[in-house]
Parts: sequence; structure tokens; C-alpha cells
Amino acid sequence: MSKIAGEEITRRRFMTGVGKGAVAAAVPASLLKRTSADVVVPEPPGKKLGWAVVGLGSLAINQILPAFAKCEKARVVAFVSGHPDKAHKLALRYGVAAKNIYNYQNYDSIKDNPEVDVIYIVLPNGMHAEYTVRGLQAGKHVLTEKPMANSPADCQQMIDAAHKAGRKLMVAYRCRYEPFNREAIRLARSGELGPVQMILADAGFKIGDPTQWRLNKQLAGGGSLMDIGIYALNASRYLSGEEPSEVNAMIYTTPGDPRFKEVEEHVTFQLRFPSGVLANCSSSYGYFHQSQFRVCGTEGRLQLDPATWYTGLRLWVERDNAIEERQLPNVDHFASEMDHMSGCVLDNKEPLTPGEEGWRDLKIITAIYEAAQQGKTIKL
Amino acid sequence: MSKIAGEEITRRRFMTGVGKGAVAAAVPASLLKRTSADVVVPEPPGKKLGWAVVGLGSLAINQILPAFAKCEKARVVAFVSGHPDKAHKLALRYGVAAKNIYNYQNYDSIKDNPEVDVIYIVLPNGMHAEYTVRGLQAGKHVLTEKPMANSPADCQQMIDAAHKAGRKLMVAYRCRYEPFNREAIRLARSGELGPVQMILADAGFKIGDPTQWRLNKQLAGGGSLMDIGIYALNASRYLSGEEPSEVNAMIYTTPGDPRFKEVEEHVTFQLRFPSGVLANCSSSYGYFHQSQFRVCGTEGRLQLDPATWYTGLRLWVERDNAIEERQLPNVDHFASEMDHMSGCVLDNKEPLTPGEEGWRDLKIITAIYEAAQQGKTIKL
Amino acid sequence: MSKIAGEEITRRRFMTGVGKGAVAAAVPASLLKRTSADVVVPEPPGKKLGWAVVGLGSLAINQILPAFAKCEKARVVAFVSGHPDKAHKLALRYGVAAKNIYNYQNYDSIKDNPEVDVIYIVLPNGMHAEYTVRGLQAGKHVLTEKPMANSPADCQQMIDAAHKAGRKLMVAYRCRYEPFNREAIRLARSGELGPVQMILADAGFKIGDPTQWRLNKQLAGGGSLMDIGIYALNASRYLSGEEPSEVNAMIYTTPGDPRFKEVEEHVTFQLRFPSGVLANCSSSYGYFHQSQFRVCGTEGRLQLDPATWYTGLRLWVERDNAIEERQLPNVDHFASEMDHMSGCVLDNKEPLTPGEEGWRDLKIITAIYEAAQQGKTIKL
Amino acid sequence: MSKIAGEEITRRRFMTGVGKGAVAAAVPASLLKRTSADVVVPEPPGKKLGWAVVGLGSLAINQILPAFAKCEKARVVAFVSGHPDKAHKLALRYGVAAKNIYNYQNYDSIKDNPEVDVIYIVLPNGMHAEYTVRGLQAGKHVLTEKPMANSPADCQQMIDAAHKAGRKLMVAYRCRYEPFNREAIRLARSGELGPVQMILADAGFKIGDPTQWRLNKQLAGGGSLMDIGIYALNASRYLSGEEPSEVNAMIYTTPGDPRFKEVEEHVTFQLRFPSGVLANCSSSYGYFHQSQFRVCGTEGRLQLDPATWYTGLRLWVERDNAIEERQLPNVDHFASEMDHMSGCVLDNKEPLTPGEEGWRDLKIITAIYEAAQQGKTIKL
Repeated sequence: MSKIAGEEITRRRFMTGVGKGAVAAAVPASLLKRTSADVVVPEPPGKKLGWAVVGLGSLAINQILPAFAKCEKARVVAFVSGHPDKAHKLALRYGVAAKNIYNYQNYDSIKDNPEVDVIYIVLPNGMHAEYTVRGLQAGKHVLTEKPMANSPADCQQMIDAAHKAGRKLMVAYRCRYEPFNREAIRLARSGELGPVQMILADAGFKIGDPTQWRLNKQLAGGGSLMDIGIYALNASRYLSGEEPSEVNAMIYTTPGDPRFKEVEEHVTFQLRFPSGVLANCSSSYGYFHQSQFRVCGTEGRLQLDPATWYTGLRLWVERDNAIEERQLPNVDHFASEMDHMSGCVLDNKEPLTPGEEGWRDLKIITAIYEAAQQGKTIKL
Repeated sequence: MSKIAGEEITRRRFMTGVGKGAVAAAVPASLLKRTSADVVVPEPPGKKLGWAVVGLGSLAINQILPAFAKCEKARVVAFVSGHPDKAHKLALRYGVAAKNIYNYQNYDSIKDNPEVDVIYIVLPNGMHAEYTVRGLQAGKHVLTEKPMANSPADCQQMIDAAHKAGRKLMVAYRCRYEPFNREAIRLARSGELGPVQMILADAGFKIGDPTQWRLNKQLAGGGSLMDIGIYALNASRYLSGEEPSEVNAMIYTTPGDPRFKEVEEHVTFQLRFPSGVLANCSSSYGYFHQSQFRVCGTEGRLQLDPATWYTGLRLWVERDNAIEERQLPNVDHFASEMDHMSGCVLDNKEPLTPGEEGWRDLKIITAIYEAAQQGKTIKL
Repeated sequence: MSKIAGEEITRRRFMTGVGKGAVAAAVPASLLKRTSADVVVPEPPGKKLGWAVVGLGSLAINQILPAFAKCEKARVVAFVSGHPDKAHKLALRYGVAAKNIYNYQNYDSIKDNPEVDVIYIVLPNGMHAEYTVRGLQAGKHVLTEKPMANSPADCQQMIDAAHKAGRKLMVAYRCRYEPFNREAIRLARSGELGPVQMILADAGFKIGDPTQWRLNKQLAGGGSLMDIGIYALNASRYLSGEEPSEVNAMIYTTPGDPRFKEVEEHVTFQLRFPSGVLANCSSSYGYFHQSQFRVCGTEGRLQLDPATWYTGLRLWVERDNAIEERQLPNVDHFASEMDHMSGCVLDNKEPLTPGEEGWRDLKIITAIYEAAQQGKTIKL
Repeated sequence: MSKIAGEEITRRRFMTGVGKGAVAAAVPASLLKRTSADVVVPEPPGKKLGWAVVGLGSLAINQILPAFAKCEKARVVAFVSGHPDKAHKLALRYGVAAKNIYNYQNYDSIKDNPEVDVIYIVLPNGMHAEYTVRGLQAGKHVLTEKPMANSPADCQQMIDAAHKAGRKLMVAYRCRYEPFNREAIRLARSGELGPVQMILADAGFKIGDPTQWRLNKQLAGGGSLMDIGIYALNASRYLSGEEPSEVNAMIYTTPGDPRFKEVEEHVTFQLRFPSGVLANCSSSYGYFHQSQFRVCGTEGRLQLDPATWYTGLRLWVERDNAIEERQLPNVDHFASEMDHMSGCVLDNKEPLTPGEEGWRDLKIITAIYEAAQQGKTIKL
């Protein structure tokens, strides 16, 4: 790759901690092929840690397993699943050895498998705590999907287990590992928009099948807020760089809707941050899919929309005389986060989104539910 | 102006005989000039009611006075001002007779001026009630700027005075008289987006000069919420077509900022509507100017951004396979609302935004302040 | 109007005392009303020159007559029309005295009317030359619509008549008098895009009524190129700042289409400029309305789309890392050009688009037709 | 994958002939993970044909080799390269056996390697013919990069060699294998825009390093037209569905620029199609990267911009009342085209872009150069 391309500059800027292989750059064909003279030949991959994927649902099948092809530091070597047929079919596809297919009963024996370095928990929320703790106890490092668990107490258990085992624990907040949200964070902190005044964040979609685990309270821990509103909550924190001190909320769930027998549908919530920044957020399982974050400064505003989709993210900056759309590469979020986790293990560093990050969101989610129920502001 | 239905807009856009001075159609030159054969010649204007403008501040000077040139049913014939020099200068510009320039002392004698049919109150908020009531008592019809007054009680007085005088009273909610917001209302009600689930509305700007009346509690009645947040509040009501039953709010005002000695800076507020629709809104005197409304249905979403500026409004509809920007004409909001008011007087009809509409917003604004102060949900 | 420099625009946009009726600023309501303390009161209008409008077709009725309300230096005082009923109806609307209504027979007697300073020719193209020359001979200054005339020879006659009469002659290239095209010119010249490499310009629309004068060769002088493609041609010249040295072209006209018995439908044409810049342009009476100009530099590109409509123009600048949409005010193009012409008369200055500018376009148009017919490059 | 997601519908629509694995869908996270209940488990890959990549320049390294991970029917098994170090390093990365690394001398012995089914020629243009013919003679199927060769005669040789060998020959026109251009073709043919009137297509970029093979006449065959303008040319043909009958052109190359000692810089060219459609196109090695295609119908217009980049393509449709941006998945163009080629081999079908397609472009390119040189329209 050439040293001339503007794109290259952009790329490098976002490369820290982001797997190179994951970059699907939004640049013209011409730019990427134009320099035959001094082609940069990528190094053969170095040590790739072995990963076990626990839970073979749609997220694993459609996003996580394909992402390994783009990883520099991670390869999939084991599955843990309650469906042996599915696991064997996928094992053929992804080159996982039959002996490395575990079920939920013999999961703990993974401790004896030296091929497995890291475990990725892709189970329903209510199972994250147990399988994370068991994984850590088996001596493996663990990356768990968000939300980290159903309660702050469960999160604490997981954190404690990691400390005890001396292993890394990371929560899969994938937006922290992709260029658009990272650039938004940089912009918000840079002062280019003036001091931040308010954050607006909305995340939701219309959920379908009433029988899915996301609508089961025990498995999901809650409704839209736990699953998708957590993106807006987490963004409010990483865009402001602060922890909220107060929350307000309203919840509405359509009576009689077969999808919402156990969990909530819509949530609006407000956060007050110590600096005075307010955040106004929404979460929904009822509205047409939406994913928009805004950071409102005194001198300008940035808008991410869509802010959290797997691809196609867009970032605008509006100032007095112009609205500017930034051109950034779309990377594979999952490859990025897996390479980050592998890197932390290899270099013995703390992940950018450790267990404590997940615990904080669960503390706030609990307060949001309480605020809505009590009809009053809850202090954190 | 009731003719500015969506259908009318479309038809009118592609007609030669646009005629209405207020329509600045967003169509190519070529289309508007293409049919020389059968040009529609506009009728000479019919009866134009005589209007008095009370208060010659920047809104009057920069928006309202120039708008009369685009009116079919309104012409400016009198001024009421505390600054005779300014009034005389403007009178020369707009052809107002010197004898028709009043001050705040001799304002009541306007009752003897048969040239004046309608009075437009463009004074600071805290003066709306008094000058509206005096205008009505003088036997004139009154259009008053928003917010209608500083309190629901003042609004009630104004409504009562109109009833007693048998005169029309209208509040200048100009967004109700322009095509983009009207099309948004139509779309929201049409079911094209599926049932409405949530409304998101943000309106604010960074206020400047600390000495202006908007930052004086007695003159302004409050801070950003009274002045600009009221657009988000009003939109939540007209986009949902409902009256809210509960409100939540947070307020933050920068300590020590010379602009905010008396009035609030930022407000976030949430509204619950009887159907279950939630609205999440923000208002600000501190953030970079913003004006965005969204209506989130189950099958799609509309977004107005900017939603309330004098011109340049834009409307998008997002559905599964496409994001569509609607092409609608930008009209002069002030000319539209003045023609509407004149039409109501001429045809003895109730305005689309009568005094009661202003009173309702003030009731809710009062509740929002209370909710923020008490840290709890207030029922309406 | 020479004040509409980029800097002026910016400054004006955020001033309270916008004053100039022509500026419909794309700024939030809030900004324009925010400073009540120090409102700038516009001066009463100074001397407004008296204008006669010759030809009361749709362009005059829908655009030009309403625009006078926004002029600082022009007012309409006379009509010249072959339809006395129409003229009298419009006279009532616009306050034109009955005695100031002329027909094509007594047009020359306008020389005795001291109220008329400037004549605006809004007739079919084939009549521009005659009525311009007669107007100049009557001692009046003349603004004529584009294209200036049906041939370079006619243009030359008009220029000569102006010189002989010692009066101003201007061609109504309205895009030169509005902020978006002016900012594009500034950007192209500024080097911000690197040296200009190529210009791409497309202008056309689907013409309707087969009986209109635009489709009559004698009245129109030609087809889409004369009427709408001239915008693309003129833009290639003002965006490059050069005069072309060579042209290539192709023409296609649908056989048997009742609209195109006399004039051409589609034209593609290429221009070579002395610096090496190439321009690639299209003109059409058959395709869906289109108006897009691009200036391609080595380091970036600007795009105007729509580039020439009466309102709603948009300007983007694309560079390596961002696509930026510039926020500029939409002004009334006709008010701007009429004020410019009045200003030139009052201050005895040469218009920005004098007769020579129209003559140059006609020379090139003639060459384009020749290139298409001969199937070869024509040198200019 | 779920049956509910709107995205799924979109996907299926474009699935014919497009490798499933290549789809990186532009949908919200939520949609893709929402249906855990009935997850569709992909089949293990069936037979993947073995591919040899000939030429390990930047296009191979940065685009083609990574794309194999997304292929359903292709895997890389061999390299042909003049740089053994580079080849061995890449072999380690992509799991290519050392014995399957060839050089340009022993290339013909690939005929004895049963692992290799298809050869992908990624060499400089001037080498396509020789290496394609040698590959076909070795009994392998061949996919060659565009432009197919330096001359129509070379193209004909390649076609003849394929016929003689009874092997498939395909040209890598990747835009034919991705959803945005395919949807544009569908729209253009569907009549939704009315009959097509004109096509506008621009493709170019600012080339850098003067020493690269693209600027060497013998290796590249020509300048920007051969390399990047061919996208505009090819698009004019596939968007119109016709073969041009006439061409016009202008060329400009900056004198003294060290990059352009042998090949041309800018080209503008016009095509006339038998139906009367005109195409106006540009090609450049000098302007800021650009890639825009438009199809202008009588009732609407579509615009692709960027039209040809590896990712981030966008498609708009403009009609009377709205401008609509279509939401389509971005797929890996190279994976799609390789899967298509493998599929054609497996099913014994003719590729969508066979050798004849490449030959046609070269015929027209030759005519464009001739038209520019002679300054006249060339008939085809």
C-alpha cells in the first residue's frame, strides 16, 4: 500500500488497536490499486490466539464466525453449543476439529484444551454470568457479549472471578472498536465543537418473533433497554467521558402485545452528568429501526446516523457555514474487538472495555427502571 | 392557507399560475416558465385587511414587515412602538402614514382607527397579555407571537377578553402554516409509517447578548423552554395529535454564566400521551442551533431537519429499502400565518391555532418546570 | 449586488439587521431574532429606478413582477404587452398606472415617459433584438432575458445600439447574481480544489406543450441549447474563467415527436479551454429536469445541484476526508439582478453581464450546432 | 437468517449469481441478531474450485486475496509471481503450498497441477493476452482483469484461445456483480424513469507515482481511458443495454508532466446509441477521484455516486416529489465475481461478462482515441 493515498492517512489514524485485516476502506478502486511500484506486502500473520465461541445463535453464525477471516490475532478453534448437529455443520465450514466441539455439560473440560486461549460468550444475557465464570475458572480469558449480565451483582461476580483467575475479562462493546464512534469521541473531546452541552442518543428496532429469548425476562434480563437501548446509554457515557449522577425515565409497553408479556417495549431516559451535560435517550422494541447519536457543543454538532449498525455508519459535523460528512473506513466491528482482546492477552494489557464497563451500565440500567417505576429522579 | 394541503402543494408546484406570492417553489426555472401559451394571470388582490404591528424589534423588522409584500389578504397600515424615530423610518420604508404611528401610551386610541383590522403583537412575552387584551378591548382582532404569555392565567385572560370582545385571537405558531410541518402531520396521521410509537424533538440555539429581554425573567417568562423549546413541545402535540398526560424533566443552567442570571439554559423533557406515545424533547440556549423533529412509527420514520427555520426546511422519510427526501416548496411562514388570520376574520372562522392552543402549551411548560424542580413525574 | 461576496454573505447571515429584502437567510429563527437590544433598522429605500416590463408571460408574472417587492433600487412602473386585459389586471395588482401600459405599436413612445428608467425585455428570444434596440433608441437602459438573441449578429446590433445611445445593456444571467454560483466561482478560482482540470455541466428539462413559442424556431432561435443548455455553457465559462477554443457536439431529436418539428431536443457538447481545461456538457428538452455543475480540481471537487433553479440551490465540496455542504442564503435571483442593473445605471458602471457576455454565448452556440452537423471539432 | 427482515428480502433479490458469503449487509445489528429461535445455519461449503492468482501487485494483495475468505466457490491454491519472496510471504498468510508457487518461466507447467481450476490474471494490461492464452492452453479457465488487453486484436486472440481450449474466459468487470449497479440496470430497463434519454458517466482519479506501470504505454496500453474511463464506457453500455454507433472525443494531457510522457491524462467522450440515447462521459488521471453515473429518463433520474468504488456505493432516484436513496447491501465485488466464475465453470454456463464483452470495450476505446486525434465523429 502506498504512502500517498489520503486514505492511508485516515487508516493509520484509526489503526491503533484495530485489526488491519478488518479494514474495508471506503476508497475508490483507483486509489487502492494505483501503486504497483512499491506494494506493501503484509506480514504472514503472527501468533493467532485460539478462540472458543459459546452459543451458536444468529449473531455467532452471521457475524462472529465470518469475522474471524478478517482477524490478525484470533482464529476460531472450538465451539460450545447445545445443538450438536448445528455445531458439526459449522465446524465443517470453519475448520473446527470435531474434538473441539463442547456442550454445556462438558464445557468445563475446556480447561484441558490448550488450543483454546479465549472464550467468547454469545449466549442469552441471563447465561453470561455463569458461562463467563465457568470459562474463567477453566483458566481461559473471556469476552462476553453485552449486556454483561442481568444485574450489577452478576457483573460483580464475573469481575471477581476474573481477578481470582488472573485472566482478562472484556465486554463486547463493538462500537468502541470502530472508526466512526472513535472519531466521534475524539471530536467531542477535542473542543472542535466547543464545550459539550448535551448528548442525544436513540437506539431501537421493531422486534419480531414473540417466542425468542430476547422477550423472555429470565434470559434477557429486561426488554429493549437491555438489548439495544444499552447502545444509547453506553454512548452517552463514552461521548461525554463522564459517569451520570441522576436519571429520569418513562416506560411504555403496549398492553396485550404478545411480544411484551415479560419485558418492556419503549423507554425514554435522561441522564445528568457531573459537568452539567444532559443526555436525552430513547430505546425501543417497537419503533422502526433507528440508531442516531448526537453531540451538541456550543459551536457545532456531530451526528452519527446510523451510529451502531454493523456497517454503513455515517458521521456528520455541522458548524456555522457547512455540514460536513466525514469519510471514514467501515471495518468489521467483531474482527476489531476480537483482535483487541487477543492483543490484550498477548501483551498483558487491560481491555478498553473491561468488566467494570459492563457493570457500570447495569448499575445505570437498574436505576433507569427504578426511576420509571417510581416516577422520580434517581440519584446514582 | 387551508389550501396548502399536500395535494394542493403538488398541484401548485407544477402549475404555471402559481400566483400566490408566498410560494417560492423548489422547481427548476424551466418548469415555471415553460408554458407561455396559457399563462394564468393572477387576480388583482381582493380586500386586504389593515394590520398594526405592535413592537418593532428584530423579528418585526427582519421577518414580519418584509412578509407583507407576499400577503394576499394583509397589508401593514400602522405601527405601535416606543421608539418614534425607528417607527418613522420604517413607516417611510413600508408606506405607513405618520398619523398611524402609535406609542404605548396612546395605543388604546387605535380603536378609533378604522384602517386597522388586526393587531400583531410582537412584544416581549411578558407584555403579550396586556397588549393583546388592550387590542381586543379596542375592538381589533389580535395575532400574538408565541409563547402566548408568561402563564396559563394570563393566557386565560386573553381568551376571555377575545370572547368578551367578540374578536378573533390567534397565536403565531408559524410552523402550522408551512408545507413541511403540515406534510409531517399528514404523514404521521396517514398510517404510512405504521402506528406512531415515539416523537423526538429538539430545538435550541446559543443565545448571545446577556442584556437582551429574552434573558430577563419578567419580560421572557422563562428561558430556552419559553422561547425555543416551545417549538419542540408544540410539535410533539401536533405530530401526535394528542395532549400529554404526564411530564418528566431535567434542567441545567451553567453557574456564573452572565446570560443566565434569571432564566434556565438547557431543558430535557419527556411527555407521555394517552395512546402510549412517548415524546423525548430538548430545549437549549446553550447548544449550537438545532431544530430536528422525528416521528417514529413501526414501519418507518420521518425526520424534519431543520424543522422550524424560516426557510430551508427539509423532510425525510425512511423506510425499509429507501430514505426519501420530499421536495416541497418553502413558503414565507409569516405571510402564510397573516393571510390565514385575515382569512379567518373575513370568513368568520376560528384560527387553526387559537388562544386555547397557546394556553395548553403554557400549562405544560408550567408542569415541565415543576417536574424538573421536584425531581418527579407531574401529571397533567 | 457586488456586495454579495462570500465574506459579506457570511457576515450578513448572522447579523440582525439583514435589511436587504433579497436575502432569505437559511438560518434558524432564533438567530435572526436574538438581539433585540441593538436592532439594525433599515434605511428607507433611496431612489428606486422605474422599470418597464416588456412581455407579460409566465416568467414575468410568476417571477419578475413578485421580485420587485424585494428590490432596493427598482420598482415596476410600466408594462408593454400585446394583451391589454392581462396588462390591466396586473397593473391593478402591482400598482402600475393605466397610462403606463403600452402595446407593441406605441412602445416607442415610452421615450416620453420620464418615470421609466430601465426596460426589462421578457419576450421570446427572437424578439429580444428588436425590442432591445427600440428601447435603447427610446433612451432607456435595457436588461434583456437570455439568450440575448437568435444570432451573434443580432447581439452585435444590440451592443452597437447601446453604445450609440449611451445607455446600459445587460443580459439577465441571473445565476451570476446569487450566492451559490458566486461561491462556486470563488472556490474554483481560489485554488482550494487545486488547479481546475475539468468542468461538467448538465441542464435540461422535459418540455411540455408543443404549441409554445420555445418550440418555434423563429421565436426561440433553437431548441434546448438556446433555452436551458445555455446555463451549462455559460457556467463552463464563468467557472473556468476562460473562453473556449474548440467545440465538439452531438444532437439527437426524437423523430416524429410533435414537440420537435423545428428545434433540437438533446445536445451533448464538449469545450476545450486554452489552459487545457475540458468541459463536458449536456442540454435537453427531453430528460427529467436536471441542473448539475461540477468543477473538478486536482485536490477536490465542487458540485452544485440544483445549480440554476430559482431557489433551493445546494453546493457541496468534496475533499479527501469529507464531503461538505455549504450553507448559503437563497436570494431572489431576479431582485438581485434588477438591483444590480439599477445600481449600474445609478453609479454609471458596466454590468457584470453586459451585452458582450450574451454575444459570446451565441457565438459558441452557433459553433456547437455546426460541430454537431458536420461531425467534427470546430475551432473558435 | 430470519424470514422477517426487510433486508432479507433485499438480499434475496440480489442473490442470483452473487456469492452469499460476500454479503456485508447494511442493516442494523438488531435486525440481524433478532431471531435466535429459528437461525438458518449455513451449509458447509460445497466444492470450492482452486484458483491461481497471477500477479501479486497491490490489487491482488489488498483486494483479491482477502476476498477469497468470503467466497463460497473459490479458494486460492496457487500463485504466479516474479517475486519469490513476496509470493512465499503471502503463501504463509493465505495457506498456499510452497510447491504451488510459480514464476513466469514455469507458469505453463501449471497445466500439470490438478489443484488449479481457474486462473485469475492480475498483471499489467499489456500482459493479459499472453498470460490468458498460456493459461487457457494449460487447460485452465481464466478470469482476467479489465481492460481485457491492449487492443481488440489481442482480445480476439484470447477469445479464440478459449474456444480452442474449450475453457471459460471472463473479464473482471466487477461492477456487474454487485447490487448497486445491478439495481441501476434494473431501474433503467424497468421504465420506472420513463424511456432513457441520456447517460452521464464520469470516472477518474489523480494518479501518483510517475514510475508505475499504468503510465507505461506498452504495459498499460493507454492512459486514464484504459484504466478507469473504461468503467464509464462499460457503464454506458450496460445501463443503456445497447452498443454505440458513433463516438466523439477530446483529450488533454498536461505538457511536461512527468507522469504523462507516454499516456493520456483527460478524455471526454460522447457516444451515440442506436435508440437515440446519447452518453456523455469523462475519464481522468488528473482530477480528484470521481465516480458518478447517471441515467436520465423522461420521468426521473438515477444517480450512482460513488458508482464503482470497492465499497460505500450509493444510489439515488429522483422523481417529481422526492429524492430517494436506496438502501442496498455492499458486497465484496471480488468475491462475487470469483464465485460467479466458479459457478459458470461448475455449471458449464457462459459468464455474464465473457471475453466478447472486453473486446467490445477495446473496439470503442480504439475509436475514441481515433476520434480525438482526428477531431471528428467516428462511426462504429
